[in-house]
Amino acid sequence: MNIPQPYLMFLGDVPDQLAAKTAAGIADWRPEWCVGQLRLTGCKADLSIPDLTIAEAKAKGVRTLVLGVVNAGGVLPDHWIGVVVQALEAGMDVASGLHTRLGSVPAIAEAAQRYGRQLFDVRHSDQHFATGKGVKRSGRRVLTVGTDCSVGKKYTALALEKEMRARGMKADFRATGQTGVFISGRGVALDAVVADFIAGAAEWLSPAAEPDHWDLIEGQGSLFHPSFAGVTMGLLHGAQPDAFVVCHEPTRTKMRGVERPLPSIAEVIDLTVRCGQVTSPGIRPLGIAVNTKAYDEATARAYLDGLARDHGLPATDPIRFGVGGLVDALQAKFS
Amino acid sequence: MNIPQPYLMFLGDVPDQLAAKTAAGIADWRPEWCVGQLRLTGCKADLSIPDLTIAEAKAKGVRTLVLGVVNAGGVLPDHWIGVVVQALEAGMDVASGLHTRLGSVPAIAEAAQRYGRQLFDVRHSDQHFATGKGVKRSGRRVLTVGTDCSVGKKYTALALEKEMRARGMKADFRATGQTGVFISGRGVALDAVVADFIAGAAEWLSPAAEPDHWDLIEGQGSLFHPSFAGVTMGLLHGAQPDAFVVCHEPTRTKMRGVERPLPSIAEVIDLTVRCGQVTSPGIRPLGIAVNTKAYDEATARAYLDGLARDHGLPATDPIRFGVGGLVDALQAKFS
Repeated sequence: MNIPQPYLMFLGDVPDQLAAKTAAGIADWRPEWCVGQLRLTGCKADLSIPDLTIAEAKAKGVRTLVLGVVNAGGVLPDHWIGVVVQALEAGMDVASGLHTRLGSVPAIAEAAQRYGRQLFDVRHSDQHFATGKGVKRSGRRVLTVGTDCSVGKKYTALALEKEMRARGMKADFRATGQTGVFISGRGVALDAVVADFIAGAAEWLSPAAEPDHWDLIEGQGSLFHPSFAGVTMGLLHGAQPDAFVVCHEPTRTKMRGVERPLPSIAEVIDLTVRCGQVTSPGIRPLGIAVNTKAYDEATARAYLDGLARDHGLPATDPIRFGVGGLVDALQAKFS
Repeated sequence: MNIPQPYLMFLGDVPDQLAAKTAAGIADWRPEWCVGQLRLTGCKADLSIPDLTIAEAKAKGVRTLVLGVVNAGGVLPDHWIGVVVQALEAGMDVASGLHTRLGSVPAIAEAAQRYGRQLFDVRHSDQHFATGKGVKRSGRRVLTVGTDCSVGKKYTALALEKEMRARGMKADFRATGQTGVFISGRGVALDAVVADFIAGAAEWLSPAAEPDHWDLIEGQGSLFHPSFAGVTMGLLHGAQPDAFVVCHEPTRTKMRGVERPLPSIAEVIDLTVRCGQVTSPGIRPLGIAVNTKAYDEATARAYLDGLARDHGLPATDPIRFGVGGLVDALQAKFS
């Protein structure tokens, strides 16, 4: 999969910023690729990049329209189809992170064929996977886990890769969701894999490597999320992490999309160790990564200090304060 | 899905009896439908029903060839294709529990079309599922869980249905695997559902019901199995069981298909309660169901008595001693 850059980011009319987290992730980690955004009436997300029409984007050299939105079920609403067809008419390719395959919509398939354009369904993989085997692989692995969905698991893994590479360590981000695949140009959208092969796909994603090589594996969902814990469990078993980072958003009052309070960080650590030991007997927590954007800096620092003290682990906001402390801990524990 | 009976059970050349557990399950629960078996050279499984050729089966009125075998990955070996094509030529339909869709094999698709026969892929569902919501549903539910794959979870759920119906209780077996779907004529093969929708499919499978109605939900895999725990977790969350039965096979030295020892029954109880509380806060163990066929009767009774004492729960071999004690406990706990 080789998606032509640069991108026009299509946000549709999604009801909040979280629903555009795919687009926001790409814009944050690949700003040079994101020329502008296209929003429909009622859209409540904003990437703070120029609003462009299809024609304006085309004039600026955009090569791909990116449907960078997520919604429960991943369906493509009927009233978005017109924009996709317009982009194809204008000579752009289209890439989507939705469950619905672009080519399964007749009007889109027809326009792509008529104008000779490519359709990329990042969430789908034509790769064949085996079932997970649970055999220990060489190399080292960190998995990011969470108290909920959308709490910074991908950001934390990407920030760790960046910091570790800056220190001259061998480190590779491993994408498990559509945004990560857009950002890294490879990976598997695990939530679209057939259930029997979740762990097997995670094993494939992070193959045996040199003993001093680190995979930074993007986590998915939460072991406590009633919708997605199956994916989280299969990923944990397949990833075989030596260590994990717990990601958290402290102002959230209930788990994303469901009526359920968040688990505590201690509960997540405990259940992750317990389940992770099935394939990685030495699994241990490395630290805590918190999205503190709702707090001022002093409050954020005090909150993180409290977490570090309570759990005996480094705690940081990867975006605000970096992940140097997490990598220090990793080097100290696994040298 | 309405598969014409009676069946000819195709066992291929599978290496052991466990690999033919689909066929064995159908033969045990629907003996009147299973006219004979067809085995290739080297087959190590046996249903103890007549060996028939396609022509002999046809003469006895067989209407469907059933591929009642499982193998890791669920692939259809090339050297089985000839028999399937022969059956179609003879005027039979073909039903398969493999991951590979029958229609994806060109020779089979072509023969089905030429002879106007139906192909049933029991493992696949064209039903669209939502993501799991975790909202409490009315009615009562028992889920069977296990220390491993292939330890009697389906048998236990079917036996509970039979005993409860015999007592005049409202009870429905809910199939989550191919054999169960063959036996009950409905259900979802959960291992073939897209990972994001495991819990949602389990919710769909066991809808809201009358307060005194019981669903007996067939479990899958094990929370401790490195290949399949993701399916087990999603099913546990979606099923929302009020109670669960732990199934076990005491002579097994390692988990099916992988190099890993079995967890203890106590570990399974503990982790099932812990994870199950996410959607069913009152979840509790109902009893223990053991496959004791390796023991003589006295040894089996002593073993079960020991388990019952150690765990404070009724313990039985559903096939050998019935599930009366489990239903007694259920009536006592939930009256």
